[in-house]
Amino acid sequence: MAAASAPTIPSAIHLGDDDLPWIDAAPGTKLKVLLVRETEGLWIIRNRFEPGVTVQTHRHTGPVFGYTVAGAWKYAESPDVNRAGSFLYEPAGSVHTLTVPESNPGITDVWFQMYGSNLNLDAAGRVEAVIDGRLVLDFYLAACAARGLPRPPVLVG
Amino acid sequence: MAAASAPTIPSAIHLGDDDLPWIDAAPGTKLKVLLVRETEGLWIIRNRFEPGVTVQTHRHTGPVFGYTVAGAWKYAESPDVNRAGSFLYEPAGSVHTLTVPESNPGITDVWFQMYGSNLNLDAAGRVEAVIDGRLVLDFYLAACAARGLPRPPVLVG
Amino acid sequence: MAAASAPTIPSAIHLGDDDLPWIDAAPGTKLKVLLVRETEGLWIIRNRFEPGVTVQTHRHTGPVFGYTVAGAWKYAESPDVNRAGSFLYEPAGSVHTLTVPESNPGITDVWFQMYGSNLNLDAAGRVEAVIDGRLVLDFYLAACAARGLPRPPVLVG
Amino acid sequence: MAAASAPTIPSAIHLGDDDLPWIDAAPGTKLKVLLVRETEGLWIIRNRFEPGVTVQTHRHTGPVFGYTVAGAWKYAESPDVNRAGSFLYEPAGSVHTLTVPESNPGITDVWFQMYGSNLNLDAAGRVEAVIDGRLVLDFYLAACAARGLPRPPVLVG
Repeated sequence: MAAASAPTIPSAIHLGDDDLPWIDAAPGTKLKVLLVRETEGLWIIRNRFEPGVTVQTHRHTGPVFGYTVAGAWKYAESPDVNRAGSFLYEPAGSVHTLTVPESNPGITDVWFQMYGSNLNLDAAGRVEAVIDGRLVLDFYLAACAARGLPRPPVLVG
Repeated sequence: MAAASAPTIPSAIHLGDDDLPWIDAAPGTKLKVLLVRETEGLWIIRNRFEPGVTVQTHRHTGPVFGYTVAGAWKYAESPDVNRAGSFLYEPAGSVHTLTVPESNPGITDVWFQMYGSNLNLDAAGRVEAVIDGRLVLDFYLAACAARGLPRPPVLVG
Repeated sequence: MAAASAPTIPSAIHLGDDDLPWIDAAPGTKLKVLLVRETEGLWIIRNRFEPGVTVQTHRHTGPVFGYTVAGAWKYAESPDVNRAGSFLYEPAGSVHTLTVPESNPGITDVWFQMYGSNLNLDAAGRVEAVIDGRLVLDFYLAACAARGLPRPPVLVG
Repeated sequence: MAAASAPTIPSAIHLGDDDLPWIDAAPGTKLKVLLVRETEGLWIIRNRFEPGVTVQTHRHTGPVFGYTVAGAWKYAESPDVNRAGSFLYEPAGSVHTLTVPESNPGITDVWFQMYGSNLNLDAAGRVEAVIDGRLVLDFYLAACAARGLPRPPVLVG
């Protein structure tokens, strides 16, 4: 097996800050979808949250990695506050409720690299909805189209 | 950064065919749990199915890899039959219903390497139960204990 | 985000025991390449080893999972012998030398699910060659073509 | 299998901006190591680069995800410039040479989530050194100790 690998792999694939539009995903919540590798269960998004936002309690079926750029947010289940420069590791199986303080002076900005699905839970802990990369990608592309925007260059593999 | 890595990693970790007991998991279905890495969402099991078994329709939130050792089984949604030597790739997001033909002359034996959760679906496609590595590990350890067996050496990380 | 996921994912993708040809990869060593997901660093192969085979000492940069179907083999660094029904977990960073006993009465048959690269090491521990999924896929496809076989249906993603 | 999962998983694990010290890793290059999951081959670091830094050409054996917080940097092999808000996907097998422009007015700050190893290549493309999570963790812990700092709370699993 002496043959060298063919150079089929690019050196890297870049998405700049302005390459993807922000879309309203929920009241006070904007969304960009950067990468969805559906068959792997991998999806990477970026959110901007206004003060006072809460996200429904959910359980992750795979690990999640959060990189916070600006603002302040926390999980109701923990005292830790994510601020600019915070790194967050969410193990598979973790359950939490994202909250953004009303007292925040500005926008909160976070990248989430997620594996698997978010299982949205009702008050009794039952699965009310399943959010995954495919669903979020479909939503994002449809919302861009509805705004008359060209298809955004989400990395889809 | 010239220092060499410390030799903290074993050369490999082995589980022989008889190192873990078979446990009845459902009618006609035996189970071994080989490895559960809960925070990664990774679980590896081995099943033995008698002829005629059906497993509830489920959706995977991560990819699954199936290695068939003996027998015959298929997904109701596909014509392909898994036999000794079959390899099966199940992408994240795949939905299927495992069936083992009544006409099989003997046992069907399969390893499944699974990432994420199995979302068991009712007839309307709603999530009825969430099966993951932690749940299956807890079941397996409890069943071994209930049979008076020593704690099996499942690889847990 | 109420839209349902589009049904773009197949229920599973099957490769039967005879769907891929065996190719001579080294003296006493036959190879099938089942799946290569190059950008993930994932590759799944199946090997058949005659008695007496040794594979160069190598280090894995990702985890590996071995499923043994027949025969007997071991790593020189460990007393454990893999036989039919053995499961082997090789953590990222593990280093080992695969050996197949001369005394084996028949063929040894193993599936390996591998992440990352194999770094082949010389006697001084220096990296002599890097083996990865792309390289092995290129070798396998070229060897099939050289034998006049049609392009095998390796799962490439 | 009706038993509920035990609540063994934390809701998340947080590292704030000031929880880990910056260490000099090379001229003009500071380093924090946030997470090392050695057996998975996963490591997450953060770098701060002064203007003019170049990192040796290397090949990745697994995928890498880059999140840029400040400054500007690029790979010599591509025209794209990573700035604040850039996301970079580096597939397994990618080869590149990180450069930070001399003309940058300030510090460049990037998180890298990496799977597998970095194979540092000499001018002829031979592997000169293998950099992985374990090696970088050992370096980081030793450097902290040498500076008289307490053991930093790197997430090690």
